[in-house]
Amino acid sequence: IAAAETETIAELVEPLHASDMGDVLEALDKEDRLRLIALLGERFDFSALTEVDETVRDEVMDNLSNAEIARGVSGLDSDDAVYILEDIEGADREEILAQMPAFERLSLKRSLDFPEESAGRRMQTDFIAIPPFWTVGQTIDYLRSEKDLPDEFYQIYVVDPSYTVLGILPLDKLLRSQRTVRVETLMNTNFIQVSAEEDQEEAARDFERYDLVEVPVVDANKRLVGVLTIDDIVDVIQEEASEDIRRMAGVGDEEISDKVTGAVRSRATWLFINMITATLASVVIGFFDATIEQMVALAVLMPIVAAMGGNAGTQTMTITVRALAMRELDSFKLRRLITREIVVGLINGLIFAVLIGIITAVRFANPSLGVVIALAIVVNFLFAGSAGVLIPIAFNKAKIDPAVASSTFVMTITDVVGFFAFLLLAGLWFGLF
Amino acid sequence: IAAAETETIAELVEPLHASDMGDVLEALDKEDRLRLIALLGERFDFSALTEVDETVRDEVMDNLSNAEIARGVSGLDSDDAVYILEDIEGADREEILAQMPAFERLSLKRSLDFPEESAGRRMQTDFIAIPPFWTVGQTIDYLRSEKDLPDEFYQIYVVDPSYTVLGILPLDKLLRSQRTVRVETLMNTNFIQVSAEEDQEEAARDFERYDLVEVPVVDANKRLVGVLTIDDIVDVIQEEASEDIRRMAGVGDEEISDKVTGAVRSRATWLFINMITATLASVVIGFFDATIEQMVALAVLMPIVAAMGGNAGTQTMTITVRALAMRELDSFKLRRLITREIVVGLINGLIFAVLIGIITAVRFANPSLGVVIALAIVVNFLFAGSAGVLIPIAFNKAKIDPAVASSTFVMTITDVVGFFAFLLLAGLWFGLF
Repeated sequence: IAAAETETIAELVEPLHASDMGDVLEALDKEDRLRLIALLGERFDFSALTEVDETVRDEVMDNLSNAEIARGVSGLDSDDAVYILEDIEGADREEILAQMPAFERLSLKRSLDFPEESAGRRMQTDFIAIPPFWTVGQTIDYLRSEKDLPDEFYQIYVVDPSYTVLGILPLDKLLRSQRTVRVETLMNTNFIQVSAEEDQEEAARDFERYDLVEVPVVDANKRLVGVLTIDDIVDVIQEEASEDIRRMAGVGDEEISDKVTGAVRSRATWLFINMITATLASVVIGFFDATIEQMVALAVLMPIVAAMGGNAGTQTMTITVRALAMRELDSFKLRRLITREIVVGLINGLIFAVLIGIITAVRFANPSLGVVIALAIVVNFLFAGSAGVLIPIAFNKAKIDPAVASSTFVMTITDVVGFFAFLLLAGLWFGLF
Repeated sequence: IAAAETETIAELVEPLHASDMGDVLEALDKEDRLRLIALLGERFDFSALTEVDETVRDEVMDNLSNAEIARGVSGLDSDDAVYILEDIEGADREEILAQMPAFERLSLKRSLDFPEESAGRRMQTDFIAIPPFWTVGQTIDYLRSEKDLPDEFYQIYVVDPSYTVLGILPLDKLLRSQRTVRVETLMNTNFIQVSAEEDQEEAARDFERYDLVEVPVVDANKRLVGVLTIDDIVDVIQEEASEDIRRMAGVGDEEISDKVTGAVRSRATWLFINMITATLASVVIGFFDATIEQMVALAVLMPIVAAMGGNAGTQTMTITVRALAMRELDSFKLRRLITREIVVGLINGLIFAVLIGIITAVRFANPSLGVVIALAIVVNFLFAGSAGVLIPIAFNKAKIDPAVASSTFVMTITDVVGFFAFLLLAGLWFGLF
């Protein structure tokens, strides 16, 4: 990327969609990235920054002056502008806002006043609102003459003078109707609206459930303040699912563009907790060191009992965590799920108890050892099934995200119960105490 | 649900959205569910069946005659009709189709001919196509006079006589323009179209990437055959994420409404594989039984080495699997990820090696044992980092879903390497062989 090539590069890059431009930025290394943006200058479209990982975005923002950011952000849709500004700290953010046109500044400030991850933060503040007594003809004439319309819109909001939403008019309905029809007779009055304070994930549920494309967002006084569109919600849904997967694996909010230090830090917490629980399991084994000394086969076999239980527990836990995340569980289904999981645990426990019992009896030419490991597996599977379903439910009740916390607890239980049950039963059976 | 109450129930249930009706069906037990549907008779809206779990849907379909299904399905949008019909087997499906109006039959048959989970299966075959020489006025007049339009639509397709898509006209653009403007000057010619054969997940990527609401679906001859809408894609995205989570935990395509037998079966496969790998790890320990006999502390400590490695491996694997699923990895990012994961593994390995080494040295009053476990942990973390990133990539290259297969392999490697490294190093250090 040499300075002389500015024009060529600008021509190459300008027709790109923001997503593609985002990819270009991510693929470049830090210096080239900043040089490209500097080269493009005013021609750089800030919406590309909404399509890159946070790490990349932060880097770019750190290297732009507040005036440049203010200019770039002014050109964006309000939801994209908020997305970029919400990561910028206090004083800088104020300075950037101060350099923007008054109307935009006010609407961005209002969005930024709503809580993080709320519908108010994600909403688009440009929308079309009309009074109920307008006719189809008046509405179309208004759309034809008004120059300052949102870039894209799918429905029109019918409001009273205080901006309370009376109904929603999808564009196709407007187009199918004769010019003389009044919009209040056409509008859909049975509609969903979300509160600006509401969590974006709750709003996403409504979109999924009712197959929506756009919903009105209202403030505490039920006045229309913006609209949420499906493209932002798709990102929320995607992000939420990824978050659940990452949390269950103990990698927090890590992104693949995170630096080594960030990844080390985000994972160390979970590894630290795992160290404590693994030590706990090890202490349990320590109680039985005399038993193991007398019969070393126990040490050879005990990881099988723990591993199988851990696996069964993870299966149950995953089903439960996912069902909780998707709000699939009412109290009736919850009871059914708990029963089912314990029964499934018991049945799979019996199946694998028999299999592993036989393998063990043959391998060590010791039928009693087979019986002992089989019993320990049934016990551990029962605990695994119960813990796998009850622990996520308990966390959910306590308003703790079950995706984060359940895994450690379930694995600790299956490890401890697995080692304890197997070594205790073996000690008793073979009279090793 | 008594027969006398038919009217009351019908009145209660009719205003419900399909999703809510689906919830009602899921909450009822089998007999009540079937009785409710029988009571409603022709008033039962089949779209509720697209909102319930497969198990519930299958049960209901088994209890309805083919004639009833044909009637119910005729009333649906083509994508919902396909969704219900695709789960019905050969002869029954033919019979149902035979009882439907000719035009609908043909379009459903064509959709059903596309591969499972393809864009062709998910598409809506109702759409509005107009020639490029029409004006805005002509188009609006057509929409006002034509009675047989899709229920909802967001854009109009401009096509040539062979139904090749020339451009897309969003409704808002149509509404903003004067009646005399020709649509070919308004239409968006830089658009995305998907092939009907294409996997629905690929199509979902396009929606996410380019913030689309509707895309045209074309056949092998590039002729417009249907449209994919965002509401179906939201379900695809949601389902795909759930699938990844479930696969990583080894619970396959299980749903919470699955019966005990289904759950037992879907999980047993994974547990069986886990049994084999756990046995493999146990065989590795078996090599060292004489070593353990001489120093039982090794048996007490070895699960810590394996558990920590397993955890680190799962973290790396999750990041990699998710990045692959989201198509976030080009070859450049891939190289960067591999390096990063191995470095992160090494650093976290060193951190926890020191911690666990000190704890062990103190606990067993044996500094040498602390050094040995520390060394084993560093080795295992290095293997965990490498396996966690390389195994999913290898599976992905071999066109195997890394979400399904990686977990077992990574855990096997961290278990085997953990036990082997620790017991071997201890044996050598303390001269126990």
